[in-house]
Amino acid sequence: AAMSFYQAGAHTLRVPLSLHADNRARLVARVRADTACPANAVIFLQGGEAETHHDTDHEILFIQEGNFHWLTGFRDPDAYAAVNVATGQSHLFIPRLPAEYAVWMGRIKTCADYQAEYEVDHVHFVDELAATLRSFSANPTLLVINGLNTDSGNTSDPVSFKGIEEFTVNKEFLFSHIVECRVFKTEKELDVMRYAARVSSEAHKVVMRAVRPGLHEFQLESTFLHHCYHEGGCRHMSYTCICCSGSNGSVLHYGHAGEPNSKIIKDGDMCLFDMGAQYDCYCADITCSFPANGKFTDKQKLIYEAVWHANVAVREAAKPGVLWTDMHLLSNRVFLTDLRAGGLLTGNIDDMMAAHLGAVFMPHGLGHFIGISTHDVGGYPSGVERVDAPGIRKLRTARVLAANMVLTIEPGIYFIDHLLDQALADPVLSKFLVADRINEFRGFGGVRIEDDVIITDTGIEVMSVVPRTVEEIEAWMAGRD
Amino acid sequence: AAMSFYQAGAHTLRVPLSLHADNRARLVARVRADTACPANAVIFLQGGEAETHHDTDHEILFIQEGNFHWLTGFRDPDAYAAVNVATGQSHLFIPRLPAEYAVWMGRIKTCADYQAEYEVDHVHFVDELAATLRSFSANPTLLVINGLNTDSGNTSDPVSFKGIEEFTVNKEFLFSHIVECRVFKTEKELDVMRYAARVSSEAHKVVMRAVRPGLHEFQLESTFLHHCYHEGGCRHMSYTCICCSGSNGSVLHYGHAGEPNSKIIKDGDMCLFDMGAQYDCYCADITCSFPANGKFTDKQKLIYEAVWHANVAVREAAKPGVLWTDMHLLSNRVFLTDLRAGGLLTGNIDDMMAAHLGAVFMPHGLGHFIGISTHDVGGYPSGVERVDAPGIRKLRTARVLAANMVLTIEPGIYFIDHLLDQALADPVLSKFLVADRINEFRGFGGVRIEDDVIITDTGIEVMSVVPRTVEEIEAWMAGRD
Ligand SMILES: [Mn+2]
Ligand SMILES: [Mn+2]
Repeated sequence: AAMSFYQAGAHTLRVPLSLHADNRARLVARVRADTACPANAVIFLQGGEAETHHDTDHEILFIQEGNFHWLTGFRDPDAYAAVNVATGQSHLFIPRLPAEYAVWMGRIKTCADYQAEYEVDHVHFVDELAATLRSFSANPTLLVINGLNTDSGNTSDPVSFKGIEEFTVNKEFLFSHIVECRVFKTEKELDVMRYAARVSSEAHKVVMRAVRPGLHEFQLESTFLHHCYHEGGCRHMSYTCICCSGSNGSVLHYGHAGEPNSKIIKDGDMCLFDMGAQYDCYCADITCSFPANGKFTDKQKLIYEAVWHANVAVREAAKPGVLWTDMHLLSNRVFLTDLRAGGLLTGNIDDMMAAHLGAVFMPHGLGHFIGISTHDVGGYPSGVERVDAPGIRKLRTARVLAANMVLTIEPGIYFIDHLLDQALADPVLSKFLVADRINEFRGFGGVRIEDDVIITDTGIEVMSVVPRTVEEIEAWMAGRD
Repeated sequence: AAMSFYQAGAHTLRVPLSLHADNRARLVARVRADTACPANAVIFLQGGEAETHHDTDHEILFIQEGNFHWLTGFRDPDAYAAVNVATGQSHLFIPRLPAEYAVWMGRIKTCADYQAEYEVDHVHFVDELAATLRSFSANPTLLVINGLNTDSGNTSDPVSFKGIEEFTVNKEFLFSHIVECRVFKTEKELDVMRYAARVSSEAHKVVMRAVRPGLHEFQLESTFLHHCYHEGGCRHMSYTCICCSGSNGSVLHYGHAGEPNSKIIKDGDMCLFDMGAQYDCYCADITCSFPANGKFTDKQKLIYEAVWHANVAVREAAKPGVLWTDMHLLSNRVFLTDLRAGGLLTGNIDDMMAAHLGAVFMPHGLGHFIGISTHDVGGYPSGVERVDAPGIRKLRTARVLAANMVLTIEPGIYFIDHLLDQALADPVLSKFLVADRINEFRGFGGVRIEDDVIITDTGIEVMSVVPRTVEEIEAWMAGRD
């Protein structure tokens, strides 16, 4: 039979649908290997539902729920999927559409169409769900997802269909298994992530050459979106674009509805642009920091290189067996050393580390798992505890690195009045701070250098490729028209 | 005091926040004039809430709920608004934010900041809601919205806050009043809609010059989005872009996740691009149809001009006092006459109209109210009944036109296999159809010509300004590089 692919356009990446068959096989193998697996178990997931903006008929452009995409790749709303653990056979359940659908939404595909398109073993209508599940065994146990997302604190959406109350539903067993499978990416998944990172990197480079004092931040957001979609086929971003200039660089999640990238970029501003596209639901998450006018001042260079040195140190140290919390601390140690050399700090670096001084300048974690979610699942499985100390408690994982994990490395330094004022008033922290020198950087904003990396057998592969050193950035931006 | 404005960028429209004060004043006047208004009434609305993608921490870019925007213009999530009917005083209730918000989301604005920015009389924290409402009177009646959206069939979101169960809540009174106010736009609202239509028109013109056989449909979507955002400051579209080429032109709501504008545009295709941006939440909704290669064939010209003649006939006839259903029928009559002249139909036009033949080619309604919703509220108030006949039953309003209503005029002709086959098999309809000639148009797709118009005292003002005649389109597209 012909292989099936997802592809946004003829010039964009072809993703084999077997990516999802491989994911199903991995999950089934894990579930079977767990002796606690209930008898007659069926992996059972509900896809995302069609939604409107409040009570209006404005349909929100559908993006599949993450676990469902991982398992099936299915792109329409209101579906279900089942995998019979005993046989490994996969079943997709699609809505039965009225004839009028063809007039409004497009050709009504048959079950055979969907079977070929998604390379599942069987396709049925949603109204055949209960009967189909019963055909697997007299009393199947539905393994559904009902766990805590450790990034959001939210639990999974409840699963429901007409007749579910007649079935045995197990809400505990499946979650940790699917999460653990998702942490480790297959080569097929990595190819998608490499593509999303490449498209996003190219778009960042286009933006760096388009930036000019006088433009609004959102105009660069628009340029980024256009490149990712037009050239890369990426219709969705991984997250709302964060396009900071000047002091906005110290607002970590700038760009939302209340702070909509609306400042005019000024000559002398640092830009901090955190933007990443998704392709086939796999995310990129890249931050570039650079001077709006293309030429670093001494102060900009000092802060930028402190962050860059932290990034490089982590790039060089990260590999299987290394604890991610240690990488966070390493990044802090490196930039604190540079800040001391730059006259902003004074004292012993070990003492600064013991006092968690790094969190004053970098209140966020060093980086996070990335995959179908920007902040991907599996950061804190059972047995991995969050470290409760400034900065490091914000880490979205405290795990030991292993091959085929994918993470961001994103050290940063920010001049946040609120945190600086707190630190200057703190008897322990204040003794490290050279207040006059630090105050010269009030309003500077911040610098973040964020890359997307794969943990390999021996180290890392960096997927994001953009100008990074001061020299590379100045040379690239000098090439502007 | 200084006037406050919403403005996306220095080069985009400045919208006075008094637009919303005017809306509040209109609503209060209407409510007071209704003798059924309960004593101690308070107009009480809940704003949209922050949302994430399923259980993840991916925050969906916030867009305000329509009624709340109309009343306040407030752009952040999780707020409430109250207007004391007795005094007319307006109150905004905002979330009390933790100090850490400043690190992640931006400067924490004070109540005084919000009061100045939104020009309301008072700003409080949400946790002060119950006490503030009690301060209006001992037993206020909260007038909340709980009505049926006649386009979606959905009812309004329920209103809730801590302590609401202690209040008298009236769910019946307010809905029809706010809906009726929203149907009639003020001059300030019209200025925003003119701007959204102008930006969208310019973007359509850019797209028409960018189209080339060989491009994918979504690349033109990307071009449209980029122009609207970069040049117009429009971060959101009114709806998902519908970018059809060739036979996709007969899929009325093409462009969704299952049909994501992914076809390669071919030489000889007609394009049907239905795209509109929103600015400050007010929508444009414009469709341009044109040949991909810039030059109409005889067949394309025949269908295009039939639709254009229908559009012009409605433009010339629409004015206060005219029934919108009559405009729908007029558009049908005009294009049926042209199709007969083109050899696709035979027989008496009155007989065709009696048989509802128009709905075979144009299964949708002629147009709809537009405002903060693309399909705006108020189409079927109490006393206005839907006409249950083919095509016309799809009309989103059956009202008599009146000044300051805003509607789309969007006749279309589509060659939809499913509908043509039905009609050819129908004993009444088939006798009007010249099957051989109609079959020449199988796979043609469709043509829609959609404008946004204001009903004036004497006729209409057309807000969408794009090349419309065959000659204008060919001349405009000939200007491509
Ligand atoms: Mn990140
Ligand atoms: Mn429309």
